[in-house]
Amino acid sequence: VAKALNIDLKQLPRTIELVRAGNSLVLQFVDQELLPDQVLIAKTSSWKEVVDAIMRLGIRGAPALGVAGAAALALWYVNELPKETGDFQENLDRVAGEIGHARPTAVNLQWGVQRMKDMIQSLDEADADANLSAVYEFVKSMEAQDEQINRSIGRHGSKLLGTNSRVLTHCNAGSLATVFFGTALGVIYTAAEEGKVERVYADETRPLGQGARLTVWELSRVGIPTTLLCDDMAATVMAKGMIDAVIVGADRITLHGDTANKIGTYNLAIAAAYHEIPFYVAAPLSTIDMNLEEGSGIPIEQRNPREVQTRPLTGVDVYNPAFDVTPASLITKIITEKGTCSPSQLRDFLGC
Amino acid sequence: VAKALNIDLKQLPRTIELVRAGNSLVLQFVDQELLPDQVLIAKTSSWKEVVDAIMRLGIRGAPALGVAGAAALALWYVNELPKETGDFQENLDRVAGEIGHARPTAVNLQWGVQRMKDMIQSLDEADADANLSAVYEFVKSMEAQDEQINRSIGRHGSKLLGTNSRVLTHCNAGSLATVFFGTALGVIYTAAEEGKVERVYADETRPLGQGARLTVWELSRVGIPTTLLCDDMAATVMAKGMIDAVIVGADRITLHGDTANKIGTYNLAIAAAYHEIPFYVAAPLSTIDMNLEEGSGIPIEQRNPREVQTRPLTGVDVYNPAFDVTPASLITKIITEKGTCSPSQLRDFLGC
Repeated sequence: VAKALNIDLKQLPRTIELVRAGNSLVLQFVDQELLPDQVLIAKTSSWKEVVDAIMRLGIRGAPALGVAGAAALALWYVNELPKETGDFQENLDRVAGEIGHARPTAVNLQWGVQRMKDMIQSLDEADADANLSAVYEFVKSMEAQDEQINRSIGRHGSKLLGTNSRVLTHCNAGSLATVFFGTALGVIYTAAEEGKVERVYADETRPLGQGARLTVWELSRVGIPTTLLCDDMAATVMAKGMIDAVIVGADRITLHGDTANKIGTYNLAIAAAYHEIPFYVAAPLSTIDMNLEEGSGIPIEQRNPREVQTRPLTGVDVYNPAFDVTPASLITKIITEKGTCSPSQLRDFLGC
Repeated sequence: VAKALNIDLKQLPRTIELVRAGNSLVLQFVDQELLPDQVLIAKTSSWKEVVDAIMRLGIRGAPALGVAGAAALALWYVNELPKETGDFQENLDRVAGEIGHARPTAVNLQWGVQRMKDMIQSLDEADADANLSAVYEFVKSMEAQDEQINRSIGRHGSKLLGTNSRVLTHCNAGSLATVFFGTALGVIYTAAEEGKVERVYADETRPLGQGARLTVWELSRVGIPTTLLCDDMAATVMAKGMIDAVIVGADRITLHGDTANKIGTYNLAIAAAYHEIPFYVAAPLSTIDMNLEEGSGIPIEQRNPREVQTRPLTGVDVYNPAFDVTPASLITKIITEKGTCSPSQLRDFLGC
């Protein structure tokens, strides 16, 4: 018998929210470096502070980075540009470049920045008030669209799950990784209301513990029964028949379907294939890199060894890639707002 | 060109050492809960303190547990028995049972306790001095034998490695897991002197970080180039062609070759098989459970959720098995002091 879970999404804050304050813009965001110890809504009018928040993972998650990137450029355009000297186009290129390269792997960040840059370039320079409204409304529409896309991803992905599924996830592809609702966890929220989720198993996700800190917090707050496990335990729960499906998010999907996501995703995909458990990637179409065929071309961010080594010892190297690439062959379906497809059908699915 | 590493094993303390002090016995051990922050040689004359050290992982590693179990029973026999009332056999059974069940998975612990129990039962009750000498010498011979066995394991295992190998290991099957020299790391020490080791990659080994805390400390001290990585990064370094072999220890090997070892070993074995990298298990014959056919019969210790959850949240379950079972099909060779064999040949190899 399918047991619908009584979940409450109102318990979750909106992750990112652009606010108009007179003649300036302010970005509000849940500072995720502080979760779960503190739920702080940070406010900033500085695009550089947004870049800083992105680099230190105060704002993270590929879809959220897309909107944050656009919002950061909007903050620059409205709050800083009037005070700047020098060539407009040069300044725009420089700031857009700096925001877009705050982190290298998620393609959504550059996608969001590029959308805002195109928008700004289309504006009439003369009318400051109209321009402020235009960039503000543009970000607000991206925010609304992000939630709509996630709810579509949720509906499409939920069809892939059976009654009372036990789902394993890695990192946080939840509401916190988006403006609202989430991608992989969006599928789980939709499915939970349809009686298709019994329990979620959340990988800790070393080194930064996004699973232990963010996913566990988010799922518990919403009311989804959740079990936390260390990354090296995933194969064991699979072998015990405790997992019906794996669902993860994505930072970049190539045209062949190879998918970059948080380090450990590839490990998990191999274990899922070995146990013949379906492995789903849930992501908006903006995650697809239309210029890249294969996963080997995806730049992988290498982060500070201190994240791994809590007690530094001399003479020891540390390997700390933030992402890995899961080959298309290990992915059962890619779940997007347009529907689901096998990685091998991705080109046809996109009509390209 | 093979580059022999100039390693220095004298940098490592003996993990366990029974000492005679007049009419009593004292066990000295490296308290591994404090490593790498502090190298403390703890001393105790109390068998209960040894049991406590085993439970809190101050003493750990299957081969070390075998000797520690025997030594704990020797401490009881020499230091406590003279003060006890009640039936000798009942007391012996009770204490041996308590020591042997301090941790359930490693079969060596019960093996070591049983050897000492048989030894004690063979003694002439009348001659206390001779008995003290007998149990003391028995433990000392177990200590010496452990090192000899490990050196044999090292010689047999080294033959499996090619020139300048890059070896991945999980948890700590090093000198710290034995009286001295180590099993999996014993293979690496032997091979390093023969120019067969370029670098060791050490899995962090969550939740208790034996790789990050112990293996990295031990290898660095000896002089082996070492790279620390999180458990969820192992598949990525394999995919990049950075790993030539995986070598791990074992807590219990069944007659079919299924092997219990630290949680995460199974995950690693699946990833190694996927990348066609040989996966070796190095262990003394005392690790083989002659009474067990299949891995499903191995009891797996479940430990405190606090080990996983550094920031406890309400409504969240934690899954925290200390070990997992790697099926024989994923193991390339088992390396023992008698030589190496495929898991499928284990019975013939043992002559049983």
